[in-house]
Amino acid sequence: MTDAPMTASASTATAGEVLSRYLTEQAGLFLRALPQAVGEAGARPGALPSLNSTGGSAGTGELLRAVRRVGGALHTFGALFEPGWAHESRTELRWLLGLLAQEPAFLRRSTRLLSALDTLSATGQGGEPRGPGMLAGHPGAPKARALLDRQLTLARTRAHSSVLQELRSSRLHALADRMTLLVGEAPLQASAGGRAGELLPVQAAVAFGALGQLVQGLPLHRAATAYQGDALHRLGAPVGEASVPAQGRTAGDADGALAADDSPWHRVRVLVKRARYALEVCGRPGLELDVLDQVLDRHQEAADAAVTVATAARTPRITPATAYVLGVVHADQRLEVEAARYAFGQQWPTLPHHGWHEWASA
Amino acid sequence: MTDAPMTASASTATAGEVLSRYLTEQAGLFLRALPQAVGEAGARPGALPSLNSTGGSAGTGELLRAVRRVGGALHTFGALFEPGWAHESRTELRWLLGLLAQEPAFLRRSTRLLSALDTLSATGQGGEPRGPGMLAGHPGAPKARALLDRQLTLARTRAHSSVLQELRSSRLHALADRMTLLVGEAPLQASAGGRAGELLPVQAAVAFGALGQLVQGLPLHRAATAYQGDALHRLGAPVGEASVPAQGRTAGDADGALAADDSPWHRVRVLVKRARYALEVCGRPGLELDVLDQVLDRHQEAADAAVTVATAARTPRITPATAYVLGVVHADQRLEVEAARYAFGQQWPTLPHHGWHEWASA
Repeated sequence: MTDAPMTASASTATAGEVLSRYLTEQAGLFLRALPQAVGEAGARPGALPSLNSTGGSAGTGELLRAVRRVGGALHTFGALFEPGWAHESRTELRWLLGLLAQEPAFLRRSTRLLSALDTLSATGQGGEPRGPGMLAGHPGAPKARALLDRQLTLARTRAHSSVLQELRSSRLHALADRMTLLVGEAPLQASAGGRAGELLPVQAAVAFGALGQLVQGLPLHRAATAYQGDALHRLGAPVGEASVPAQGRTAGDADGALAADDSPWHRVRVLVKRARYALEVCGRPGLELDVLDQVLDRHQEAADAAVTVATAARTPRITPATAYVLGVVHADQRLEVEAARYAFGQQWPTLPHHGWHEWASA
Repeated sequence: MTDAPMTASASTATAGEVLSRYLTEQAGLFLRALPQAVGEAGARPGALPSLNSTGGSAGTGELLRAVRRVGGALHTFGALFEPGWAHESRTELRWLLGLLAQEPAFLRRSTRLLSALDTLSATGQGGEPRGPGMLAGHPGAPKARALLDRQLTLARTRAHSSVLQELRSSRLHALADRMTLLVGEAPLQASAGGRAGELLPVQAAVAFGALGQLVQGLPLHRAATAYQGDALHRLGAPVGEASVPAQGRTAGDADGALAADDSPWHRVRVLVKRARYALEVCGRPGLELDVLDQVLDRHQEAADAAVTVATAARTPRITPATAYVLGVVHADQRLEVEAARYAFGQQWPTLPHHGWHEWASA
């Protein structure tokens, strides 16, 4: 990965040259990581022992990294590419992202929930650093742990089977061919012959603008004060406030209500990643966006984990003690969601809101 | 209540005169509120319909207010009173406080928990201002509500019976006689003949110093950052950190662990009240202490409410759905505890930590 693709010849390079250089590098990473990911997936058909704790094998991680960057560049700088090709490529990259991201996500969720449960139920004995947790010695804790472990292992196994099925598919081969083409030369429009230092920041600023507009619709005033004195009560978007349609929300459906509350944040996460990769293409550092990206990853993972817990609590024939523990863990994950929103609200104003274009310029 | 008992003749009055004036006023309030409280208690033998939402009848509220202030003054300025009398008076005032405070506390807890449950399970339909809560439409919510309501009503009824039993007791009559004595003249030491402006701030500064020392032992660094990124996990005092013995804590006993974590905060609350009343005696405004007092009242009430919920969850034969909802409500109340600690950590540094004596002086 280069730190500054544009700096070497920023004054003379065309936008097409800078983009080609970036995509060549990312597509190269894709093609190197692909066989590794395929090999890794094949090597762990069942128990998935080789996955590491950060949520996936090295090959899959590299592959996801490259897929996100190529997709992001094709979106943000789409006007400079041959339109049909760029559109199809993005569709295929999204498909691969959805396919590959699941298994490591389930692994991270498992790690997140089981370690949350372990900390909450720690007794603080035998040199544990933290002391007793809120569920210390609760009789429901071991059962709740076993239940979550079982359900998440099953989900991971299913995700893994899907990956195995598709990793040798013709669809993946065709996508690999697309990436090979990118290593040679990207199908650019004639307009990409303009100067990089002029064209790219304009496109990047559009991506920043879309992000800014979406963030304006977030209920940041709700997240602006830590705790707000009403704890978990303000979950769920106040009626008439949400700037986006509350899709998925139905009366009497808590999961749907939370999903509607979360969804604009999840979309902001996607746009933050795009803005981050756009800055990367422009060769500009974007530490502030990296931080926001991590915060929103945490937001997404906690929200998904909360849904998993709520689902587990609907398992037939569990004991009240198990259900009680799951209720505490659910609230704990929703609190993580709130904490991430608070962190976002603290970090967001540090961005150059009226100088997107200058930020992306050298 | 006077705003500034000392200002009228601050330069010439003795400490005894200022204290007598303060205690005369408070004892007078006590004696006026007592028959009203007795009448109110007798008028609601069963269903307690006349209690207001702030947690008690007007008479009982006034009585508690006076009891706290007289007790606080006798503690902080104890060196200026006849020791045996002051000690006995404080014992009797504590007894009455314990007796009278229970019923309104159960009422406030009931209001707190049922409204928390109602907000958490609101569907956001029909013009509700907030939108759907985390437990919107959850099948366990109505049952959990009924369970908490039933158990808290029972506790209130028991507390009320104790009050009825004692309100016409000889012990209470003896205490009323003590208060009558105070309206005349408090049993002062000869040393109370010194100048108020010199003696009282010295005693008040001792009370502030005791408060400051206790607060130094609080894990304020844990409460200093909102959320801290680890949600509910850090509940329970880290091993080896607690500056006070973790009484009540046993391995595998989450309630005990939490009680040990809460207890230094509860003691700080008592000392904040004492410092507040000491400033009142000195005729100084103490808005900062009023805020801390309210924050720690909220801390205490949320901690007590959490215990009630945990106890309710151990009721035999409840459904898993009910238990799940109670788990969420428990976590919600523990979050309120954390929020109160955070608020305390924000407010505490605004106090004049190196100028207690000057603060209490005119």
